[in-house]
Amino acid sequence: MNNTVIMKKLKVIKIGGNIIDNPTELNSFLKSFAKIKGLKILVHGGGKLATQIAEKMNVSVQMTDGKRVTSKEMLAIVTMVYAGKINKNIVAKLQYYNCNSLGFSGADGNAITAIKRPVNKINYGFVGDIVKVDTYVPSLLLQKNITPVFCAITHTKNGQLLNTNADTIASEIAIAFSEIYETELYYCFEQKGVLLDVNNKESVIKNINKSNYQTLLANKIITNGMLPKINNSFYALNNKVAKVCIGATSMLLNKNEIHTIIKNE
Amino acid sequence: MNNTVIMKKLKVIKIGGNIIDNPTELNSFLKSFAKIKGLKILVHGGGKLATQIAEKMNVSVQMTDGKRVTSKEMLAIVTMVYAGKINKNIVAKLQYYNCNSLGFSGADGNAITAIKRPVNKINYGFVGDIVKVDTYVPSLLLQKNITPVFCAITHTKNGQLLNTNADTIASEIAIAFSEIYETELYYCFEQKGVLLDVNNKESVIKNINKSNYQTLLANKIITNGMLPKINNSFYALNNKVAKVCIGATSMLLNKNEIHTIIKNE
Repeated sequence: MNNTVIMKKLKVIKIGGNIIDNPTELNSFLKSFAKIKGLKILVHGGGKLATQIAEKMNVSVQMTDGKRVTSKEMLAIVTMVYAGKINKNIVAKLQYYNCNSLGFSGADGNAITAIKRPVNKINYGFVGDIVKVDTYVPSLLLQKNITPVFCAITHTKNGQLLNTNADTIASEIAIAFSEIYETELYYCFEQKGVLLDVNNKESVIKNINKSNYQTLLANKIITNGMLPKINNSFYALNNKVAKVCIGATSMLLNKNEIHTIIKNE
Repeated sequence: MNNTVIMKKLKVIKIGGNIIDNPTELNSFLKSFAKIKGLKILVHGGGKLATQIAEKMNVSVQMTDGKRVTSKEMLAIVTMVYAGKINKNIVAKLQYYNCNSLGFSGADGNAITAIKRPVNKINYGFVGDIVKVDTYVPSLLLQKNITPVFCAITHTKNGQLLNTNADTIASEIAIAFSEIYETELYYCFEQKGVLLDVNNKESVIKNINKSNYQTLLANKIITNGMLPKINNSFYALNNKVAKVCIGATSMLLNKNEIHTIIKNE
């Protein structure tokens, strides 16, 4: 008797600000995304639009100890931009490409609850640390082949929305769905993968595992910008996510396209 | 043998800008709304926030022949405000009051398709006239007791979002759901009902039917602001909606509270 349960596959795909900020790039990505067979979830970051609107509205971008803070006014702007303009335009475009989709913030269907980040040295303001991803409502939709599209806004369940890191949202969603699907996590950005030499776009590190990661850190190959993405990747792999890849959107449709695979070994 | 099919009931409740603009009023409404038993859908208007943000961003509110026009810049703002800030804050508050809800624009789940209003004498810009309400995705959620919350944004299915009248969205949703539920439509606003004398808040007209409506029009009791709401009401009743009421939010929890009932007789 074989006790192996064959789980359906799910791809959780995160796109970053550089794709969001370029309408041609975004459109081309969404056209490709719509063609991906099987179950999928899209998570999108915010790009530069929120900062541009803050400037137009004379809302100052607060910094504390060199880190960005989400003030009440900035929270209102990111809610408008991420959950409103970006999310709805992505969903409308996906409908055009015949991918039935539905936009989520963490409040919708109570999908992602978070707590306001505790104040230690730095008060980040209305920034959320994820407490729980509830797969119930998004999986109702996935069962009917409707694609959830998540923006980077969560809620406290006490009526408060919170600005939340999109990379972390993607890894937490992938982890939660690993209970019901064989889940793969894809971080898409403007490079073909994690680069050995930032000045050489072709110098993609094909595999990162725990041992070469230490060397890459020690040699300062992995920079601050990439650090959270890779930490999120190992965290996902440590929590039942089947596969994590980092690369350009082209890796999604063409398996032979070079990209970085993070391995938990 | 009795062939009568007993349909489940559904309440479609629309709240206007005056409720949205007043945080205390909105909060009190949402607390009450969460308590309403049975299936329900919320439709919300936009209030004054979009205009305020347009002013802050130096986006001029265009007028043609005395009518407001939705320019490309204004469409971006209403998408941010209606589908982003207002919709997500309503959903987050409803979650707090233990009403599991999920925000929709017309693009989400392909729920409301529209066409850009044809240009006759006036070019209204990015304004939508509804073509179809697809009940499939919202009814998936209703079956699990999750409340859809609609903002007044629709889409063309060609990737274009459109600004759409919230009263009309409410009546079209009520009509579409009348195929599967016994549907009641409630227009909530700042008055207790349609007033015989605008200066007397207690002078609520309890019943409006086709015959006294003509008299009310002839005597200029029904003003321009109320006209579309009542036309939408008769239109809904002509298309299988079981009941239409106009009044204050208090009518939802207390049946004895005075309000206007529109009757198709």
